[in-house]
Amino acid sequence: MPRPRSLVIRIQSLLSRSTTPTRHFSTTSITRSSSGIMATRKALIPQSQRMFDGNTDKQDVWSIFTPANVPPDAINLGQGFMNWGPPKWVLDEAYQTISTDIMTNHYPHPRGRPRLIKAISKHYSPQFENLVKEGRELKWEEIVVTAGANGGMYAALTAHLEPGDEVIFLEPYFDQYFATVHFQGAKPVFVPLHPPTGEGVKGGGEWTLNIDEFRAAFTPKTKAFIINTPHNPVGKVFTRKELEEIAKVCVEKDILVLADEVYDCMVYDGKEHVRIATLPGMWERTLTVGSGGKSFACTGWRVGWLIGPPELTLATQAAHARIVFCTNAPMQESVAIAFEGAAKHNFFAEQLAAYQERRDVLCSYFDQLGLSYTKPEGSYFLLVDMSPIKVPEEFVEKVPDSIKKGRGKDFVLCWWLAQEIKVVAIPPSEFYCGEHVEIGERFARFAFCKNPELLHDAGKRLLRLKDYM
Amino acid sequence: MPRPRSLVIRIQSLLSRSTTPTRHFSTTSITRSSSGIMATRKALIPQSQRMFDGNTDKQDVWSIFTPANVPPDAINLGQGFMNWGPPKWVLDEAYQTISTDIMTNHYPHPRGRPRLIKAISKHYSPQFENLVKEGRELKWEEIVVTAGANGGMYAALTAHLEPGDEVIFLEPYFDQYFATVHFQGAKPVFVPLHPPTGEGVKGGGEWTLNIDEFRAAFTPKTKAFIINTPHNPVGKVFTRKELEEIAKVCVEKDILVLADEVYDCMVYDGKEHVRIATLPGMWERTLTVGSGGKSFACTGWRVGWLIGPPELTLATQAAHARIVFCTNAPMQESVAIAFEGAAKHNFFAEQLAAYQERRDVLCSYFDQLGLSYTKPEGSYFLLVDMSPIKVPEEFVEKVPDSIKKGRGKDFVLCWWLAQEIKVVAIPPSEFYCGEHVEIGERFARFAFCKNPELLHDAGKRLLRLKDYM
Repeated sequence: MPRPRSLVIRIQSLLSRSTTPTRHFSTTSITRSSSGIMATRKALIPQSQRMFDGNTDKQDVWSIFTPANVPPDAINLGQGFMNWGPPKWVLDEAYQTISTDIMTNHYPHPRGRPRLIKAISKHYSPQFENLVKEGRELKWEEIVVTAGANGGMYAALTAHLEPGDEVIFLEPYFDQYFATVHFQGAKPVFVPLHPPTGEGVKGGGEWTLNIDEFRAAFTPKTKAFIINTPHNPVGKVFTRKELEEIAKVCVEKDILVLADEVYDCMVYDGKEHVRIATLPGMWERTLTVGSGGKSFACTGWRVGWLIGPPELTLATQAAHARIVFCTNAPMQESVAIAFEGAAKHNFFAEQLAAYQERRDVLCSYFDQLGLSYTKPEGSYFLLVDMSPIKVPEEFVEKVPDSIKKGRGKDFVLCWWLAQEIKVVAIPPSEFYCGEHVEIGERFARFAFCKNPELLHDAGKRLLRLKDYM
Repeated sequence: MPRPRSLVIRIQSLLSRSTTPTRHFSTTSITRSSSGIMATRKALIPQSQRMFDGNTDKQDVWSIFTPANVPPDAINLGQGFMNWGPPKWVLDEAYQTISTDIMTNHYPHPRGRPRLIKAISKHYSPQFENLVKEGRELKWEEIVVTAGANGGMYAALTAHLEPGDEVIFLEPYFDQYFATVHFQGAKPVFVPLHPPTGEGVKGGGEWTLNIDEFRAAFTPKTKAFIINTPHNPVGKVFTRKELEEIAKVCVEKDILVLADEVYDCMVYDGKEHVRIATLPGMWERTLTVGSGGKSFACTGWRVGWLIGPPELTLATQAAHARIVFCTNAPMQESVAIAFEGAAKHNFFAEQLAAYQERRDVLCSYFDQLGLSYTKPEGSYFLLVDMSPIKVPEEFVEKVPDSIKKGRGKDFVLCWWLAQEIKVVAIPPSEFYCGEHVEIGERFARFAFCKNPELLHDAGKRLLRLKDYM
C-alpha cells in the first residue's frame, strides 16, 4: 500500500533571536505523515502568502546555529545580546516606583509615559544639532514610545506605505527589515554595501555605498529608505559626507527615511555619530529610531522610541496603537529611571569604554591570526574576512545538505567553526538577497557584547585557526 | 488679503484607551495654517490609505470623553482599567527574580518564556474539557505568548489573512478588531447582537445573536470569525447552546476562529464559561485569547497569550516575531509568578467575589432608578437602557455639533451625563457600523472595575437622573 502522501507544511520557526541580520521568519519544514506529533491534525487554516515570500522557504540561520545544533561547550558569539544585565540601581528604583504607583502597571498613554518622553527629550535633544541651532529641545509630540525599536519601525511603515510601494535598504541588512516592509504589501529593494577591496588589509578598509547604485535603485514607487548607523553587522558608522550624499538623494526623491540608530551608545574611538535627521531637508522626513534594550543592556524589555516631526510620530503612534495598543508601562518607567540616573552613575561613558575594550580583545586574536577585518566603528559586531581559512575536505563531506546546498560558502565555514573550533559565529551571506550572496560569503560575524573573560576564551580557541590557513 | 488656505490633515489621535469598544484610531483634525505649531512643516510624507478607512474620519469617542473634556470632578466609569494594581506579592517576587536572573531582562524566546508557558498550561488545561477528556495538558507548542492579547490577535490575523478576505465579528465590538482586520487588507463584516426586547425588564433579557443573520453574513471570502465571551461591552457570556450553533456554522464554513476570552476570570453567579475551542470540530480551528493584564489587574504589562493547535500558534508566533519580535521578558516572568502563587493566595476566587460585589453596587443604583439593564454575566461592563432619560432641551442646544451631528443620540446623553451629572459613561453606538447605530444608541456603558467607594459615589450622583425621567 502506498505511503500516504506526506504533506509538508512550512511553519515559521523563531528559535532564537539576536540583534543580527538574519531573517527570523525563515522556515523549518515539519513533515506531516501518518506518524508523529502533527499526524492527527489537518492544516485546516492555511497561512497567508506573505508568510512564505522572501527567503523564507529555507531554514533560517538561527535554527541552524541554535545551541541545540552545536556542541554544548561551544562559546556563542552568534547572538547579539549581552551576557550581563541592566544596572542594579535601575532595577531597585524601578521596583520602588512600580510597587507604589499603581498607574505604572496600567495602560500608559499610547504615545508613551510622560516621564519617559521627558527623559528621552533630555537625553537626545543635545544630540540633534538642528535643534541645538534652533535653541530648543524635543517636544513631546516629536517622540513616540513603541514596543521595541522593531515594533516602532513596523508601525511607522504601516502608517506610511501603500501596497506596491518600494523601500530601499542596504545589504547586509538587519533581518527584520524584510518583513517590516513586506508585511505592508510593499517591496524591499536591496542596495549592497561593498566590502573593502584588497586582501590582508588588517584593521583597515571601509565598507562603502556606491551612491550611483543607490540612486539607481529609486523608481517612482520608492516611498522610503532605511539606514542603519552604527551598522549591524558591518560595524560601520556612516560619515557626515556619506550621509550628506544619501540625504541629498532622499530629499530630491521626496521620501520617508527611517534612521535605525539603536547602537548610538556604541560609537568608538571618538568617531562622530551623525544623525541623518539633522542634515538639511531631512528633519521633516526622518524618524530616528532608538532602543532602551541596546542602551541599557536589557534587550528583553521591549521599549523603543521614534523621534521626528509630529506628523510622522503621530501617524506612527496611531498605527502602533492599532497593532499592540501601547508599550508596557513598567519597563517604560524603568528606562526613564535609567536615563535620569545615567549621568550620576557615569553610565554611558563606562559602558562605552567597556564595549571598546571588548571589541579590542576580540580584534587582538584576529590580529594574531593575521585575518583581515574592518575595525568596528560602532555596534557590537565584527565582520572578519575568513577567506584564508580552509575547511578540511573530510569535514565538508559530512556537512548536511541543508547547510551547504543553495547557500553561501560561509555557512559551511561557520558550521565547522561551531562544531570543531567551538566558537559560534554567523554567516553574513544570509543577510543579502540571492543575487548578492557572493558579496558577503567570505566573512563571518562575531558578536562582542560578551564579557572580556568569555571573549578571551573564544579568542584562544580561534587561534587554532592557524592550522587551517 | 485672503487668509492662506488652511490645510487640514488628519492625524490619528489615541488620547486614551480602555478595554472598550471604541475605535482608538479615530482622528482629530489639526488645522495647519500660517500660525501655530505645525505651520512651518509640510506634510511631506502622506499616510497610507488604511489609516483613514472605516469610521476614522470622525473624532473618536475617547477624544470626546477624555478627562480634558469633562469636569475635573467627574467620576470616570468610561475607561476599562482598574483603580487598583496587581498583588504586592507578585511585584515583590518579580523584583527578586528580575534583579538576580540576568536573562529575565533579555530577549525571551519568541514563543514566550518557558516558565510562563508552563504556568499557562497548568492554569488553562483543566478548563479545556477536550483536553481533560484526552487526559492531557496543554503542550508548549499549543501556547504562544504575545505583546498583549491585542498584539496576539493582530499577529494571528497577519499570519492567516489574505487581502480581500472577510472576517465576521459581532456588534457592538471591541474597537481594535476593526483595524486588526483592516490592516491586513481584509474586510470586517458586522453581525449585530440584538438587545433584549420589551421595556423596563429590570435585570432581565438577553442580548441575542440571530444565527440566521450570522450564517447569512458568510461569503466565499469569509476566512475568520472573532467571538468575544465574556463580551465587552454587553457583559454577555455565551451559552453552550449558542456556541454550539455558532460552532456548527464555523465548522461547516471551514474558517479560523479567534475566541477573545480575556475576561474569563470575570464570570459571575456561577455561570458556566464555555470555551468554543472545546466544542466538536473547533479545537483545530480556534485560537483562544487570554490576557495577563485582565487576569491580574495590570493592564499596562502587555502580556497576552493565544492557545490552540501547533499549526495556528506557530504561524502566529512567526508573524508576531516579525511585528514586535517578542514579548517583554520581565512582565512575562511576573505573570508566571502570579499564576504560580494564585492558589496559595486564593487570588482568583477573591478577585471574582470583589468584581461581583462591584457589579452589584453599580446595578443597585440603576435598580433604584428603575432603569433597565441586562445584568452582566461576565466582564466588567454594564449596559443600561437610558431611553427613559430626557436630556434638557436647553442643554442639547449647547452641545457641540461634533458630538450631536452624524452620531447616535447616546453621544448627547453621555455628554450631558459627564457635564451635568458628573459621571463619565461611553455611548455604545460608536461600536456599531453606521447602518446599525440605532441598535445601540439607547444605551450607555458603565465600567465597574473601580473600587466600591467610587462606585457608590458615582451611584449617588446617578440617582439625580430621577429628575430627568
